[in-house]
Amino acid sequence: MYRLYDFLHSGNGYKVRLLLNQLQIPFERIEMNILQGETRTKEFLTKNPNGKIPVLEISSNQFLPESNAILFYLSQNTAYFPEDNWYQAQVIKWLFFEQYSHEPYIATSRYWRSILGNTQEFQTQLEAKQDGGYQALQVMEDHLQLHSFFVNEQYTIADIALYAYTHVADEGGFNLQPYKAIKSWFKRIEAQKNYINIDQG
Amino acid sequence: MYRLYDFLHSGNGYKVRLLLNQLQIPFERIEMNILQGETRTKEFLTKNPNGKIPVLEISSNQFLPESNAILFYLSQNTAYFPEDNWYQAQVIKWLFFEQYSHEPYIATSRYWRSILGNTQEFQTQLEAKQDGGYQALQVMEDHLQLHSFFVNEQYTIADIALYAYTHVADEGGFNLQPYKAIKSWFKRIEAQKNYINIDQG
Repeated sequence: MYRLYDFLHSGNGYKVRLLLNQLQIPFERIEMNILQGETRTKEFLTKNPNGKIPVLEISSNQFLPESNAILFYLSQNTAYFPEDNWYQAQVIKWLFFEQYSHEPYIATSRYWRSILGNTQEFQTQLEAKQDGGYQALQVMEDHLQLHSFFVNEQYTIADIALYAYTHVADEGGFNLQPYKAIKSWFKRIEAQKNYINIDQG
Repeated sequence: MYRLYDFLHSGNGYKVRLLLNQLQIPFERIEMNILQGETRTKEFLTKNPNGKIPVLEISSNQFLPESNAILFYLSQNTAYFPEDNWYQAQVIKWLFFEQYSHEPYIATSRYWRSILGNTQEFQTQLEAKQDGGYQALQVMEDHLQLHSFFVNEQYTIADIALYAYTHVADEGGFNLQPYKAIKSWFKRIEAQKNYINIDQG
């Protein structure tokens, strides 16, 4: 059985939990307290030398870190990853957009504000993240005004990756009110079979 | 013929140029002056709403941004992407490591220091990037002490993605001297067929 090294509040961990649940693949979840350095211990670094969760343990000597790489791995030959090369490339493109142009603004702000609960100490950094976060939201909004999902009008791992931190962006201080297409897309995702919430282990 | 919207000093652009050259695929390179906002024009945003290079124009209505997504697209069914699912997932994992834990430190420092040429103005930001950059280099060094390439002892797009900014990390103020395994790996990459330098268009 798969084992998932995870942190319940992590959107990156949630991506994997959501897909595993939708694929109806059983797994054991191991909660790591990232706030107490549990991903930086010598033992954990043998699983992921980069010291981050999530990590999927596939077998006793196969550990896969990077949330979006895990989504890629699990979704191969399923309905959550398209068959066509061009659509596959677009899924991968959105996964990189998420990790480079979205997560460092939207997830990081949520981490400081909501998980560390330290809005005051991080005030300057939070302000510096606003423009990038809103730019990512606008790119998504513009796309979703024309499309029901991110790639080929079908629900894929691109939607899972982008949904994870977007639907809790308010916890990082982003006002989602004006993003009507994004909010409609939330509803389409939440209506998918075997959907679970971010706080479901 | 493919058209590549590019910026000659960009490591992200170089990844694509290097792979295209190694695959012996002809392409037209369109130099975009990112320092003068040429990727933020209304016209360019129709090609990539996220306003960044590189973008690969595959046909008049097919534009693919995100350097590592382009590597994925071009390498399908070639020797540069493994056939096995588990090795594929590891390639993808290193691509995300590169964009999340490496590029934002090592490439960004080089951009401020070497491309904008403004070490003084960015002194505080440059210092803040040191730890993350050296941590990424250490993860690579540890891996390369045991392996000749990043995945399955074969040269793949994971090596191309990581090589692009690592081999010019000194331009961002990182001292590569202690990283002997990384420097040996540079030589193995530079010996690959149809290798080109970063400043070759």
